[in-house]
Amino acid sequence: MSVDTVRWTGGVDGYARLIDQTKLPGELVYLECRTDEEMVGAIKRLSVRGAPAIGVAAAMGLVLGVREAAPATEEGLLEALEASKARLAASRPTAVNLFWALERMAQKAEVLRGRGVAGMLEGLLAEAQTILEEDDALCRAIGSNGAHLIENGDGVLTHCNAGGLATSGYGTALAVVFSAHEGGRRFTVYADETRPLLQGARLTTWELMQAGIETVLICDDMAASAMQSGRVTKVVVGADRIAGNGDTANKIGTYGVAVLARHHGIPFYVAAPGSTFDLSLSDGGGIPIEERAAEEVTEPGGVRMAPEGVRVWSPAFDVTPAELITGIVTERGVIKHPNAKKVRAMMGER
Amino acid sequence: MSVDTVRWTGGVDGYARLIDQTKLPGELVYLECRTDEEMVGAIKRLSVRGAPAIGVAAAMGLVLGVREAAPATEEGLLEALEASKARLAASRPTAVNLFWALERMAQKAEVLRGRGVAGMLEGLLAEAQTILEEDDALCRAIGSNGAHLIENGDGVLTHCNAGGLATSGYGTALAVVFSAHEGGRRFTVYADETRPLLQGARLTTWELMQAGIETVLICDDMAASAMQSGRVTKVVVGADRIAGNGDTANKIGTYGVAVLARHHGIPFYVAAPGSTFDLSLSDGGGIPIEERAAEEVTEPGGVRMAPEGVRVWSPAFDVTPAELITGIVTERGVIKHPNAKKVRAMMGER
Repeated sequence: MSVDTVRWTGGVDGYARLIDQTKLPGELVYLECRTDEEMVGAIKRLSVRGAPAIGVAAAMGLVLGVREAAPATEEGLLEALEASKARLAASRPTAVNLFWALERMAQKAEVLRGRGVAGMLEGLLAEAQTILEEDDALCRAIGSNGAHLIENGDGVLTHCNAGGLATSGYGTALAVVFSAHEGGRRFTVYADETRPLLQGARLTTWELMQAGIETVLICDDMAASAMQSGRVTKVVVGADRIAGNGDTANKIGTYGVAVLARHHGIPFYVAAPGSTFDLSLSDGGGIPIEERAAEEVTEPGGVRMAPEGVRVWSPAFDVTPAELITGIVTERGVIKHPNAKKVRAMMGER
Repeated sequence: MSVDTVRWTGGVDGYARLIDQTKLPGELVYLECRTDEEMVGAIKRLSVRGAPAIGVAAAMGLVLGVREAAPATEEGLLEALEASKARLAASRPTAVNLFWALERMAQKAEVLRGRGVAGMLEGLLAEAQTILEEDDALCRAIGSNGAHLIENGDGVLTHCNAGGLATSGYGTALAVVFSAHEGGRRFTVYADETRPLLQGARLTTWELMQAGIETVLICDDMAASAMQSGRVTKVVVGADRIAGNGDTANKIGTYGVAVLARHHGIPFYVAAPGSTFDLSLSDGGGIPIEERAAEEVTEPGGVRMAPEGVRVWSPAFDVTPAELITGIVTERGVIKHPNAKKVRAMMGER
């Protein structure tokens, strides 16, 4: 199971091509981004979403931004890169992979000095491709490292979509699931629909069904009952940013699932690549949480369901304290019962 | 704040008139039921919902069913009543007020023997009206008894709709809120939207805004974050059936909210009239839980959001164990930290 979430087509005069995830599962439609502003738009409206996928998209967006500026000199290219980086960085605040990828591209540009404008642009495109390929390798390593956590007969709850669509193609939380399934284990995945934007109902079920994995869709408020009744025996979710002590920001609702899992004695796993760790933050308190527009709540599926003028509070993410996390599955291994020391030991030098 | 959820219009040749709650908040439309089958349909598709309101609706439905049979004798009337009772009892399985109201009507019919067919029918209609009027009085008593639980500055979370629309007009959980507001307290109510049918988004916000109470709509998966951030300081919900030990069945998601409240040290209150108690059940394990159609999950607002053919698990209710309940607010007073002994002491003889 792998999907072509975001890909580059052609050479430096090419474009980024990405699955418009707002149209799934009804239609599999591809968007073509030829400017960084088009990429910013795609990220903002969640046509491309998921922390690792946003990182790849931002790197490609930066190539588009630099190319569009048509700089005459290397200095001009670096200025264009900084301007484009600022535009892309303003698209969404929580997933750290976005900033990580932009920073990596900026550092690469410094290394590429002296190759001329055309050479630098080619080098930047190659770096974006490398980020994409590395992400795929990391996701497969996450899958391998986490597959043993899923046993025959398990009921695995996941929230939002941390599948191929959230990454270069194989997923993080779902990489664990795909890898266990490919290894011959048989289990059921319970997909929280994940309001307001229903990434679980629209994207996770779609990926799981394509992979031939037994899938049950539930509303978010059914998760507790699914645990109480014994249907759910494990939880695996992705992450948008992990602080130095293991505190994890992920899609709104994840923290609630973690509390419920703890109450029921159910293991709660996070799966994420190194680019999701933000070791500059000692704990999750420093992670900025995006708030989304009221209409995403009041108009599910585009149909008005709440009274006009009602106040809405719609944080896009929440922070799960490390003490509620049984383990963080990374490309380097599983950080069991994470804390600052264990996170540093596993992810400190990359 | 009071709404005309379900009312009888005219004499014994009249009809039941109820707010079609599936159309709110977009349109305030009334349904007229002239047969018990029309009432069964209204209950099944949740045009009328909420345990106490279903009780009133069922009592009126029974009058319609008996009248429609046009019995020639008192024996014929009693047979028609039994047949209509069976049809109404099959509408929804969880809320006990439905069965309670039907049983009360059947017992009343026995008392009315000897008055002739016309006299019995009039007596049954009067009994249905009495159930309606009593429910209103009970709701107002619940409000009075629970108002002191809400303090200035509180953030009160409620799940689903236990407002006027769930009762004869004043509500149970929202009676507590309305009564505190009428008493001059100022606070904010957080309304869980309550998937799949969005009674919180559609009905609770509508009632609260009409009453001029500060209202914030959230998705169900935002409740944990609202507690973690200190926004929510109290929880008040309704009930569909309360077992002898205080275990409480209510709208799916309530149990999860109770677990979250416990984790955050937040008081969790249930508000319900005596007719919601089922003392024939020693605990919540015996409460039948209705499962609803997959389309309610896969097609929010009537728009398909999940892949065709996806499996869905959609229980309409869950059971919150008594040990997670801080208090049950009834018309007789508050049962603090409920258990079998305290429930029997407060509600045992009615």
